Amino acid sequence: MTTLADLQVSSLGPSRHDSPLGSYVAGRKTNEYYVSEDDRVLYDDTISLLEQRGEPVERWPSFEPGGPRARIFHDPATTHVGVVTCGGLCPGLNDVIRAVTLELYTHYGVTRVTGFRNGYAGLVPELGFEPVTLTPGLVGSINERGGTILGTSRGAQDPAVIVDRLVELEVDALIVIGGDGSMHGAHRIVEEIADRGLEIGVVGIPKTIDNDIPHIGQSFGFATAFAEAAKAITAAHVEAESAENGVGLVKVMGRHAGFIACYSALANHDADFVLIPEVPFSIDGENGLLRSLARRVREHGSAVIVLAEGAGQEHVRATGKSDASGNSRLGDIATIVREAIEDDFRERGEPLTLKFLEPGYGIRAVPADASDSVYCARLAQVAVHAAMAGRTDMVVGRRRHRFVHVPIPLVIERRHSVSPDGDLWLSVLESTAQPLDMS
Amino acid sequence: MTTLADLQVSSLGPSRHDSPLGSYVAGRKTNEYYVSEDDRVLYDDTISLLEQRGEPVERWPSFEPGGPRARIFHDPATTHVGVVTCGGLCPGLNDVIRAVTLELYTHYGVTRVTGFRNGYAGLVPELGFEPVTLTPGLVGSINERGGTILGTSRGAQDPAVIVDRLVELEVDALIVIGGDGSMHGAHRIVEEIADRGLEIGVVGIPKTIDNDIPHIGQSFGFATAFAEAAKAITAAHVEAESAENGVGLVKVMGRHAGFIACYSALANHDADFVLIPEVPFSIDGENGLLRSLARRVREHGSAVIVLAEGAGQEHVRATGKSDASGNSRLGDIATIVREAIEDDFRERGEPLTLKFLEPGYGIRAVPADASDSVYCARLAQVAVHAAMAGRTDMVVGRRRHRFVHVPIPLVIERRHSVSPDGDLWLSVLESTAQPLDMS
Amino acid sequence: MTTLADLQVSSLGPSRHDSPLGSYVAGRKTNEYYVSEDDRVLYDDTISLLEQRGEPVERWPSFEPGGPRARIFHDPATTHVGVVTCGGLCPGLNDVIRAVTLELYTHYGVTRVTGFRNGYAGLVPELGFEPVTLTPGLVGSINERGGTILGTSRGAQDPAVIVDRLVELEVDALIVIGGDGSMHGAHRIVEEIADRGLEIGVVGIPKTIDNDIPHIGQSFGFATAFAEAAKAITAAHVEAESAENGVGLVKVMGRHAGFIACYSALANHDADFVLIPEVPFSIDGENGLLRSLARRVREHGSAVIVLAEGAGQEHVRATGKSDASGNSRLGDIATIVREAIEDDFRERGEPLTLKFLEPGYGIRAVPADASDSVYCARLAQVAVHAAMAGRTDMVVGRRRHRFVHVPIPLVIERRHSVSPDGDLWLSVLESTAQPLDMS
Amino acid sequence: MTTLADLQVSSLGPSRHDSPLGSYVAGRKTNEYYVSEDDRVLYDDTISLLEQRGEPVERWPSFEPGGPRARIFHDPATTHVGVVTCGGLCPGLNDVIRAVTLELYTHYGVTRVTGFRNGYAGLVPELGFEPVTLTPGLVGSINERGGTILGTSRGAQDPAVIVDRLVELEVDALIVIGGDGSMHGAHRIVEEIADRGLEIGVVGIPKTIDNDIPHIGQSFGFATAFAEAAKAITAAHVEAESAENGVGLVKVMGRHAGFIACYSALANHDADFVLIPEVPFSIDGENGLLRSLARRVREHGSAVIVLAEGAGQEHVRATGKSDASGNSRLGDIATIVREAIEDDFRERGEPLTLKFLEPGYGIRAVPADASDSVYCARLAQVAVHAAMAGRTDMVVGRRRHRFVHVPIPLVIERRHSVSPDGDLWLSVLESTAQPLDMS
Repeated sequence: MTTLADLQVSSLGPSRHDSPLGSYVAGRKTNEYYVSEDDRVLYDDTISLLEQRGEPVERWPSFEPGGPRARIFHDPATTHVGVVTCGGLCPGLNDVIRAVTLELYTHYGVTRVTGFRNGYAGLVPELGFEPVTLTPGLVGSINERGGTILGTSRGAQDPAVIVDRLVELEVDALIVIGGDGSMHGAHRIVEEIADRGLEIGVVGIPKTIDNDIPHIGQSFGFATAFAEAAKAITAAHVEAESAENGVGLVKVMGRHAGFIACYSALANHDADFVLIPEVPFSIDGENGLLRSLARRVREHGSAVIVLAEGAGQEHVRATGKSDASGNSRLGDIATIVREAIEDDFRERGEPLTLKFLEPGYGIRAVPADASDSVYCARLAQVAVHAAMAGRTDMVVGRRRHRFVHVPIPLVIERRHSVSPDGDLWLSVLESTAQPLDMS
Repeated sequence: MTTLADLQVSSLGPSRHDSPLGSYVAGRKTNEYYVSEDDRVLYDDTISLLEQRGEPVERWPSFEPGGPRARIFHDPATTHVGVVTCGGLCPGLNDVIRAVTLELYTHYGVTRVTGFRNGYAGLVPELGFEPVTLTPGLVGSINERGGTILGTSRGAQDPAVIVDRLVELEVDALIVIGGDGSMHGAHRIVEEIADRGLEIGVVGIPKTIDNDIPHIGQSFGFATAFAEAAKAITAAHVEAESAENGVGLVKVMGRHAGFIACYSALANHDADFVLIPEVPFSIDGENGLLRSLARRVREHGSAVIVLAEGAGQEHVRATGKSDASGNSRLGDIATIVREAIEDDFRERGEPLTLKFLEPGYGIRAVPADASDSVYCARLAQVAVHAAMAGRTDMVVGRRRHRFVHVPIPLVIERRHSVSPDGDLWLSVLESTAQPLDMS
Repeated sequence: MTTLADLQVSSLGPSRHDSPLGSYVAGRKTNEYYVSEDDRVLYDDTISLLEQRGEPVERWPSFEPGGPRARIFHDPATTHVGVVTCGGLCPGLNDVIRAVTLELYTHYGVTRVTGFRNGYAGLVPELGFEPVTLTPGLVGSINERGGTILGTSRGAQDPAVIVDRLVELEVDALIVIGGDGSMHGAHRIVEEIADRGLEIGVVGIPKTIDNDIPHIGQSFGFATAFAEAAKAITAAHVEAESAENGVGLVKVMGRHAGFIACYSALANHDADFVLIPEVPFSIDGENGLLRSLARRVREHGSAVIVLAEGAGQEHVRATGKSDASGNSRLGDIATIVREAIEDDFRERGEPLTLKFLEPGYGIRAVPADASDSVYCARLAQVAVHAAMAGRTDMVVGRRRHRFVHVPIPLVIERRHSVSPDGDLWLSVLESTAQPLDMS
Repeated sequence: MTTLADLQVSSLGPSRHDSPLGSYVAGRKTNEYYVSEDDRVLYDDTISLLEQRGEPVERWPSFEPGGPRARIFHDPATTHVGVVTCGGLCPGLNDVIRAVTLELYTHYGVTRVTGFRNGYAGLVPELGFEPVTLTPGLVGSINERGGTILGTSRGAQDPAVIVDRLVELEVDALIVIGGDGSMHGAHRIVEEIADRGLEIGVVGIPKTIDNDIPHIGQSFGFATAFAEAAKAITAAHVEAESAENGVGLVKVMGRHAGFIACYSALANHDADFVLIPEVPFSIDGENGLLRSLARRVREHGSAVIVLAEGAGQEHVRATGKSDASGNSRLGDIATIVREAIEDDFRERGEPLTLKFLEPGYGIRAVPADASDSVYCARLAQVAVHAAMAGRTDMVVGRRRHRFVHVPIPLVIERRHSVSPDGDLWLSVLESTAQPLDMS
């Protein structure tokens, strides 16, 4: 269980500069915009979950709120901020890069902003990727295109080499936009910095197309991504409805978490079955997929199945195939489901028109939609505030609509997933009317 | 200040039926999906705002959570539910109608669902609008079109006539999808029902294109609406940039609240000035609009102004015009601003290409986007759960990502608006770099 | 070469009724709208191609223009028109069904319009698909959804059974919306009708997602389809640009014709290589794909390949694999190209991030865009005019922006394809700057 | 009537260089791509219109086809090409600028390409707009944004000053992207060049949001524009349908030509009345707008009117208002129609919910859609071919799907408009079912 101690965010030290926001304001008292250093946001807000009820509220688990501070750690006149994007693409990366840059220039007057190219590789000099100087002119309209202008890559690099590079370039704060693995990497960089006693902050902005970062709400770009996935479900539904015994099968991303499958199915309203990693399902048996599907097709004339790529892994392992080297070869759940359906209809002597769609990378390479674009901009502003205030080893996130600071160790300890007992899955069950228990 | 008592939701009486969800489940214990009747969600989650710290947490202001109950009030076998949409259009109305209908049929087995046409007028027999029987087949894909299949109208009707009609048709629960005024009307219907001692529930689903309902977070359809408004800002920006001294002026909805202006400006990133009802601005003067605009055009070559229709009302009143009957005629702030800018550039001898855009009704007549569509579906499900559980005189809403029940008196006591000292307005200031104080 | 005789359209007989358009008009001479029965549209309009120059122009190959006739064959008061959609989906099918229905009701006063379900199967009573009565109310907004409300299927049915059914239902004209195979089927129905001496017309509206119908210009839905395909190319480009040595590979429809590949690449501007069935390419060799790709990636850092599914079939045959029954198994060109690229980069010791996208059915299940929607409506109107005028064994099409009648035998004699010497392919070469000869 | 002589395109002189395309090809005979200098495309292709039938076909009116020539006039090694965009915005301007630049660099090896800023003003040194050097890098993805990166302006400049500037910068060919007025300007520049005996070509690419350029088919960007306008009609329809006696009134661009009104109404299918400049209509009277509207609202419950801004000018003049200086003030037809409808319903004692929408500049500031983007790219390529071949005083256009060269005097002699007797207007009448004669 999360404890009070877990939620304390690290700082490089006491703040020693006034925020330049004050001088910017010209005649208006702006202290109201500042977040008080004493404030906290409760971790839980449901009374039945407030197990610490007997204790004073100040000792309940709570997050530090995000936002601008009246006093900051780094001196804007000299501060050098680095930005790096790591891992797979996600809608909104360019929005985040843009807003980080503009916030630093416009609000703090920081004019040394450097983008490292192709993920952590860009911090390893021998790999030869020249850093990019980020300016308001350069980032002006990059939000209109998907992807990341900095490039990205997967995989870790030696923390010692990275810290050498940060020292060499006099970077005071590194903003890492990346997923689970990248935050592990960020934590190791923090450790290396601490070992050397340096005053370099590392602030993360969690990125995950699968929405599987724990403790925070919906991750940036996720709404855009599931909206794209929903289009494929609509296409599958149109194909299925236009044929006799039409079945549409849509495979969406989600190796460990079924959020994309759930939300795209809810958005589209046309799915009859949603299969996700968190909820096991049988292919055979009375409540299994085949008989349930046969019933649905008989009643409605067609059906649509939304399948997360990580669903039904027990069936995948069962294929028992191995590759040339004798390693067990992971089957593809979509192929297994597809062939099972085709066999079943053939055996039952019924016609079948099965259409398979896989939106794939198409959902993550698009620009952020309007809501995600706002979210990215505000998240980036909060990250800059945290970095300037000297925070480190933490990420910014929005939990229950409040921007908060979360220690990195807390977001990498486990993955967030769809709770089979929660209200999201209940909504999916209500929307699809699929059997509650298909196992 | 909101008190504990204010947050208690009314009920028609003790629950007397088991939820049919249980029998639906077939072999899986589903109690986990049920919301406990003892549970509560804290009104505040920020420690500095928790003024009741000394008291036991059970006595702090809190909302009743939304969701399905194990025991319900109405008997699904006989329940008759009415649905009505009132006031102006908003993206997602058809999503809500659809999800209410499907939830009742599929989950609760309720098959008597009636839609009243053209707002409260549809509940007044002498106006002649025949009710519509809502079925899964009828509502199947209505979410793909904007507007409301039920039609809508503004204005109140006699509560006594309405309650007569509900009694005549044996309606057990009326779901009202509407705004501020409609919720006033709903409350008067509740009073009339109470006076007669009837067991008819009234559950509201707040609808507001302006996002100005208090106590709950973003209202349904709002994200879709500001995304549409953002397109007009983009067009204005493109026009402005393509001309020498180009100025784009975009008037968006928002009579009392500037949320659409703020969010569409944040989404689009291209606005240089955002003018909203909550923050006064001068037209003349050193920090006024004209000089600030002149500076911006000189620096950037062009500028874009986003203007909420209710902004700058002090300037409107100043026109002092009156119509034929001698009534004072409200001027239009867009015309005032436009003419002031044209005069100013003319007087200063500078060229000006001013392009005016007003997306108008175009932002509210579109279908809900994917995120709003999910939101509408889930909100409607929660409303149905509340109605079946016998709740009345309340609305459903999502506050800090939790679905909650809010007493109607609480949502009609005042309007929600953009706080000039809050983080949303700060984000706008950071994004536009407009002067913090233009008054 | 096309001869004069080939272009004569068949008719059921001399026209014997006045068009009801006249009476509809109310005081305006509307003859100007009517197409003269003596008029013709030249097959060629390029002087160098006009080989018949010595002959009088009346004898040059020419098409009959489409449009309303002053005198028509069928009596609107009693006419019964059937509609059927066959083969794969294509954007705009519902637009066509809608416009056929509305044109018949509104313009001709024909109120007997029947839709046959699931392609030709719907005309075979024993298969049990009940026909649908098409009315203005039913078709009102079907254009907003992709697919076909009538359903569709592939494959032929016995012409004798179909004609029996048409006779049984007293159908005077059958409008067939379908592709190559369906037009073969339509021609066999015409032959059966002729054998029996019946006065039933068969009018086709050519449907092909691949744009491969000869003699007419762009087919309906094609513009919508390639616009969707272009989105996948954009995504591939974004993925490729965001990685070190990123290569995006996009497989699009086009078994025999590369139009989708060409147009989507031109629309998107981001493709570096377009590979189509009509233009052979080598994988190895100095101008082959691998070396050309390596050069491009070295110069630009990334590259995008657009691959029609029917491209490079010579490489597919070369795989020589066979399935369990010993039948030779067609390889998939995308897999072959993908593996060749991966092997090549591995052998050359260069990093590679290859992302594969296949928009698949997603491009054909969407609703028609605005231009296609207009096109579908007008094409359907022309088909109705032709049917009412007693034309048969012909299709309507738009050639060089003129609606014309084309005999069915002419459109099924061969497929249209991208000319390697024509200006479309030249535009692709200019746009991609790929080697002119990659063979 | 157009004569043979009118269709001859001017040239700077005989071609004296080989096209570099040949050397680019590497081992493939590419002559097939070249357009023969002897070829022509017939002006008419309808036999009834071919009045010259008795004469040899070579003497019939015909256009010169567009495309690459084997021999060209300008030497690519030294050629300097200027580009300028004039007049109002139109979707696709950046596509054209991009494709002109890429075609020159990639295909012809021309590396001196200069963009003049803000229309013809950019060619007047004293106005101080520095020219922009256009490179492949600069134009890479400009097509993704609406507007024109070069800026634009209305109005003419002194041809002598412009030619001085062209001579000063050693420009060999000027490509003018603009409308009617801009082509008048271009022609005057040609005359000035001819007077001085210079070898500078002027090639136009006609731009018109109203699609009113004569002799050529649909202009670039028009399809994108009417698709945007159609969205406003959909919104109006949704608003109208959601109210009792709802009337949607949509004002679209089209001062002299009703193409946008016609096509957006056809695309959307929801319009009940389309009012355009070419077809007069009465407000009162039996077939006038008010009675026709009243009938339609009575039958359908709602109605949508699409109004081109230039429609019904006879009613506008009738208002007889004049401004402060005594000049007659043109009324706004939308206001006149709106007030007439409101008065009429009020007088007849019927409720009315009238919603007015005006998409305005929003339809012209968007990026080109996929089809227009392809069209722009190909049109630009043809313009570059014409410029390099030494053509002058001409525009490129696509007539009946063939790219052709048209002399500038021919495109500025009159405006293209919707023929009240043509098949487009007939389609509108068929689609709306409005009275054929509302005058």
